[in-house]
Amino acid sequence: MIVQPGSPNRQIRLVRRPADQLRVDDLAPVEGTVPEPGDGEALVRTILLSIDPANRSWIGGRTYRDQIREGDVMAGFTICEVVDPNGTNLAAGTIVVGEAGWQQFAALPARRLRPISATRPLSHHLGVLGVTGLTAYIGLTKIGTPAAGEVLVVSAAAGATGSVVGQVGRLLGMRTVGIVGSEAKRRFVTEELRFDAAVSYRSPTFADDLREACPSGIDVYFDNVGGPVLDLAIRRLNLHGRVVCCGAISLYDTAEPPPSPRGIPGLVITKRLRIEGFLLGDHAREFDAAVDVLQRWIEQGELRVVEEIIDGLDAAPQALVGLLAGENVGKRLVRVGPDRA
Amino acid sequence: MIVQPGSPNRQIRLVRRPADQLRVDDLAPVEGTVPEPGDGEALVRTILLSIDPANRSWIGGRTYRDQIREGDVMAGFTICEVVDPNGTNLAAGTIVVGEAGWQQFAALPARRLRPISATRPLSHHLGVLGVTGLTAYIGLTKIGTPAAGEVLVVSAAAGATGSVVGQVGRLLGMRTVGIVGSEAKRRFVTEELRFDAAVSYRSPTFADDLREACPSGIDVYFDNVGGPVLDLAIRRLNLHGRVVCCGAISLYDTAEPPPSPRGIPGLVITKRLRIEGFLLGDHAREFDAAVDVLQRWIEQGELRVVEEIIDGLDAAPQALVGLLAGENVGKRLVRVGPDRA
Repeated sequence: MIVQPGSPNRQIRLVRRPADQLRVDDLAPVEGTVPEPGDGEALVRTILLSIDPANRSWIGGRTYRDQIREGDVMAGFTICEVVDPNGTNLAAGTIVVGEAGWQQFAALPARRLRPISATRPLSHHLGVLGVTGLTAYIGLTKIGTPAAGEVLVVSAAAGATGSVVGQVGRLLGMRTVGIVGSEAKRRFVTEELRFDAAVSYRSPTFADDLREACPSGIDVYFDNVGGPVLDLAIRRLNLHGRVVCCGAISLYDTAEPPPSPRGIPGLVITKRLRIEGFLLGDHAREFDAAVDVLQRWIEQGELRVVEEIIDGLDAAPQALVGLLAGENVGKRLVRVGPDRA
Repeated sequence: MIVQPGSPNRQIRLVRRPADQLRVDDLAPVEGTVPEPGDGEALVRTILLSIDPANRSWIGGRTYRDQIREGDVMAGFTICEVVDPNGTNLAAGTIVVGEAGWQQFAALPARRLRPISATRPLSHHLGVLGVTGLTAYIGLTKIGTPAAGEVLVVSAAAGATGSVVGQVGRLLGMRTVGIVGSEAKRRFVTEELRFDAAVSYRSPTFADDLREACPSGIDVYFDNVGGPVLDLAIRRLNLHGRVVCCGAISLYDTAEPPPSPRGIPGLVITKRLRIEGFLLGDHAREFDAAVDVLQRWIEQGELRVVEEIIDGLDAAPQALVGLLAGENVGKRLVRVGPDRA
């Protein structure tokens, strides 16, 4: 495929910074142009775009990356095909993972593009074998330091990361309990993903339900949500319990984040808890080994992959807003371009 | 010395549970009697009583130990002499560390009594070579995972634990900054204990002072106080910063504890922080090695020992109330009985 700089390049930009909940029209499609790749950059075409709760947090302020500002192309993880190597060592047609954002074409430093293996489907490289699956596996094993027989609780358990966390916990011999937002998801994670139990945080009896699901307390809490669910989990943690702070969905899409959990440092001292933040980028040296383990479990039928692929870049704003409202099950992706690989 | 069960045994009991701040007359001397040691118990006589902020927390509610209730003899760490082995393997006259509490005599399980070495003075075995010194050394090295060149901040820096934490940090090559409650303590820890800097949390410019004292941020925060100081320290932590949650003095002596620090889990994720509780009892296997290190530093003149010894069991209530008000410098002890060893 020949693509000339200056050709049309469909993009979604942030056009209004949300005051509280993100709305679909805070993001708008724009006809941009294909950029000229600079020194050390390759030109890539987006095939698949990952839709993640973290996308929302990047709009809210500076996190572990620069804030997305009004007028910016929305940022996101992507799978792309190299269309112009521009003198870099990435051959045309190479399939790579990178951060092309919400657009058809991008010029990106070749060192920020990671060629991926032939494993199919490609979508797995953004999900179970990509950011969310690696986050689940490395976050749980490295930060959660799990042991067989321990009790694992994970929030957003039907989501892209949570659905893998719970299954990995089971495969490591833990009792796994999911926290979800609906009765349908509750059934899904117990019946389809083989969690030992699941409870809905929207139930009026949530606190009692969680206690009943974890009669011997919680050893590892993998937190994707923050807020009142984190507060409750900390109170139910056992001696030497661990919290993997991975995400805070409840804090991203609101003008008034909930207060911090109670009992800090009181419960932390009394129960000798460890509350630790996790960001996948710190653990790049473990990616290959983790992919091998996850891939093997998938092939053995032990790890069920759950994905939703939505067609068309223009559907991305609704896909993200819906994700933040909790409508997704498993990994949500947008197909931006045809898969030529 | 012959002591018969039923002989007089001066004790201090909790006679009123404090609604907020502990008052001297919440604790009262009582003439009890020397107990009859039971099976496996030795009879001991108290020589020195340790006065610790944690004593107050034990009154407030169940912590890592049972709550002290009205009518109970006040609990505390002690150095004692065995007066009646009662068939256990502790010879009469053996000097031991244990928890005899605020009384002259106690019958305690021999397995809960730890004979101590000949190192003099005995007071060191409750301070720098005892609970507070071991807490400082093991808490900092194991939970704080310090590295030379990093910035260490410790609160209650003129206290029994904090004064050792800061000096150990310096000996490990860290830049050490103390948080204290007065100008006199600020001078003491910088001039006498060789901290690199110190700031008073009572200063109206505390937040600015701390920033100026740590221009490159904080890598390890050793927390003895909780509350607003913990909140501020978390905001100043660098990427991958650690908090050793060791104590929470600001929460012990009040009816309305301050709220938890802000930014949990937000800052924990963004900065990949680790907030971890520490209790010395979990690390008993490391006591001997830690005592060796601390003892060597003392002998080399590198580690300055700071103690206050107050005479007489009846002075203990005022000693604790004063400690909670921040009047002590270094380790505070009460001499209960003559040192016959």
